[in-house]
Amino acid sequence: MANPSLLILAGDGIGPEVMEQVKRVIGWFGEKRDLAFDVSEDLVGGAAYDAHGTPLHDDTMARALEVDAVLLGAVGGPKYDDLDFSVKPERGLLRLRKEMDLFSNLRPAQCFDALADFSSLKKDVVAGLDIMIVRELTSGVYFGEPRGIFEEGNERVGINTQRYTEGEIDRVARSAFELARRRSGKVCSMEKANVMESGILWREVVQKVRDTDYPDIELSHMYADNGAMQLVRAPKQFDVILTDNLFGDILSDCAAMLTGSLGMLPSASLGKPTEKGPPRALYEPVHGSAPDIAGQGKANPIACILSFAMALRYSFDQGDEAARLEAAIETVLAEGARTADLMGAEGGTPISTAEMGDAILGAL
Amino acid sequence: MANPSLLILAGDGIGPEVMEQVKRVIGWFGEKRDLAFDVSEDLVGGAAYDAHGTPLHDDTMARALEVDAVLLGAVGGPKYDDLDFSVKPERGLLRLRKEMDLFSNLRPAQCFDALADFSSLKKDVVAGLDIMIVRELTSGVYFGEPRGIFEEGNERVGINTQRYTEGEIDRVARSAFELARRRSGKVCSMEKANVMESGILWREVVQKVRDTDYPDIELSHMYADNGAMQLVRAPKQFDVILTDNLFGDILSDCAAMLTGSLGMLPSASLGKPTEKGPPRALYEPVHGSAPDIAGQGKANPIACILSFAMALRYSFDQGDEAARLEAAIETVLAEGARTADLMGAEGGTPISTAEMGDAILGAL
Ligand SMILES: CC(C)[C@H](C(=O)O)[C@@H](O)C(=O)O
Ligand SMILES: CC(C)[C@H](C(=O)O)[C@@H](O)C(=O)O
Repeated sequence: MANPSLLILAGDGIGPEVMEQVKRVIGWFGEKRDLAFDVSEDLVGGAAYDAHGTPLHDDTMARALEVDAVLLGAVGGPKYDDLDFSVKPERGLLRLRKEMDLFSNLRPAQCFDALADFSSLKKDVVAGLDIMIVRELTSGVYFGEPRGIFEEGNERVGINTQRYTEGEIDRVARSAFELARRRSGKVCSMEKANVMESGILWREVVQKVRDTDYPDIELSHMYADNGAMQLVRAPKQFDVILTDNLFGDILSDCAAMLTGSLGMLPSASLGKPTEKGPPRALYEPVHGSAPDIAGQGKANPIACILSFAMALRYSFDQGDEAARLEAAIETVLAEGARTADLMGAEGGTPISTAEMGDAILGAL
Repeated sequence: MANPSLLILAGDGIGPEVMEQVKRVIGWFGEKRDLAFDVSEDLVGGAAYDAHGTPLHDDTMARALEVDAVLLGAVGGPKYDDLDFSVKPERGLLRLRKEMDLFSNLRPAQCFDALADFSSLKKDVVAGLDIMIVRELTSGVYFGEPRGIFEEGNERVGINTQRYTEGEIDRVARSAFELARRRSGKVCSMEKANVMESGILWREVVQKVRDTDYPDIELSHMYADNGAMQLVRAPKQFDVILTDNLFGDILSDCAAMLTGSLGMLPSASLGKPTEKGPPRALYEPVHGSAPDIAGQGKANPIACILSFAMALRYSFDQGDEAARLEAAIETVLAEGARTADLMGAEGGTPISTAEMGDAILGAL
């Protein structure tokens, strides 16, 4: 049988340097665990714009639709701030999400024991935190039409459209309920049904899917503003949070920061489960391209390596190997390995991106 | 000269009981400080729906447009959850905001010294925190058309429209810059210009107003998701935050919760400054109607009393009297007066809503 295929899109900023370490880890699994991948690489974001004048070349898009999984580093940077909206680095990522139909974005917010002190929140509020945010990723105000800046009388008006069909809500709700079944069975869905009709439809459809096909799931609903508050006040009340594209963008970043270590958090974006194989999938760290430290070997590669662990679990049915990789990371953290972003007030000397890679390979 | 006029809309849940204490404070200013108000009272939200079948009667709306300032308690409650969208309690509040044209919503997130331990964040992260969020309040996705739930093929689709004109952005930006001049001179504007065209226009207009008329202001821009992160990570980096209606809803609640004491936070919603008098204005606590504790005399009246202090400052040019009231509140807190919401892990016996009122009147 052919090896499973991986497309690596390292992107901009610290993307390439953290991806270097992921490639070493992928290599290790091929050599030591007889788990070889056919790896190809290509450009996305500003890097693709520099080479081709577009943040995602059509050939890259086509390749992404063929492979078993895509691994992405990060996109964007100040160099591209003044580009036209249509060719901004982010458009490359958004096109991948849309054309691969990756409607279900899983964003774990997990607090690592060795790093609990690192949060801006009190230790007892976040120690042991383990939330999974399921964010709808291919619709809502990110993609709704009409959109743009239009002339109206003698002034301009900026317009975007929040738009959800029943089908779009239904399928992401199912993915959250499936996931919850493998966790605590508890889902909290967030919207602004008190203000937005799209939120009313969201709440209604989510409830109906639960009542019809997931009666075992404990479902609650919360307004998104209250959700932000509750995340800050008592995040451990949540297990799976289900929300839309825009609320998910903000709430998942808020949740991520509760853990205090953004450099640790991976994400998975999944399409429709198929009969014959894994769903289309893209894995990427939650952190951005961090242009301020790019190219200096300071970046933390763990979020990107954990994204590959999610790929092992969700795309390649290698949950045990994923757990092996995650355990290796826990080990190096417990042993005190720290990149610059993980240095607390105590100080000490941080290790480099490559040294963190060395440590993880050592622990494997 | 006639006394300035105040319309009190106590609303639902704990609204009436916290407003009772505000009325005592208003009475005190009339008796002791020769600062009498013509106070009238009316219904809003579920209370208005119960009486009139609408969350805001036209007569109440007309009265709100006549008075010098409106004081609102809170709206909403589970009793009204199944009402049609058009008559939900929240619609009463949204109608007031829209028809009074209260485009600038000021939401301070301030950490009181005596309560710093109460935050879920570490003390050094929040002690001394003093942020002012300026939220656009009459436009954006809260009011944009088209909106609703429509049939499309064989399914329904929920639609809302995010919509900002240059003029709408311009005026709220000015109000943030004016405010910043009386504070640190620093404004951070938040949107999603990397994804939404309305955010691009927002960023451009805010920058232009700054460059043209407020060159002394230090203006920065941040994506709203990063804004949520930064609020959790290091909130003291911010002074004035300027943002739109929906982002403001979520970010201001997130910021409010950083302080750990929602029962302490007031807000002001202001219209256009006029030549001949104060702007139209509505003052309300940030907390909601808290139906779970309503009618039990447990609610903390301080947020609502501080909303009256904001009225003294922004509507009646009585900054000194506002400061007097704020100082009285600091005093009672320092002396240990605590309603149930302000009880820490140490325990102790909380005082009632009315006893907190007594204490504040005593300190005045
Ligand atoms: C880079 C940007 C387009 C993206 C988003 O807004 O979705 C990012 O913030 C994220 O959350 O993945
Ligand atoms: C009650 C509700 C309509 C309101 C809003 O969403 O604006 C509230 O959350 C607020 O922030 O004042």
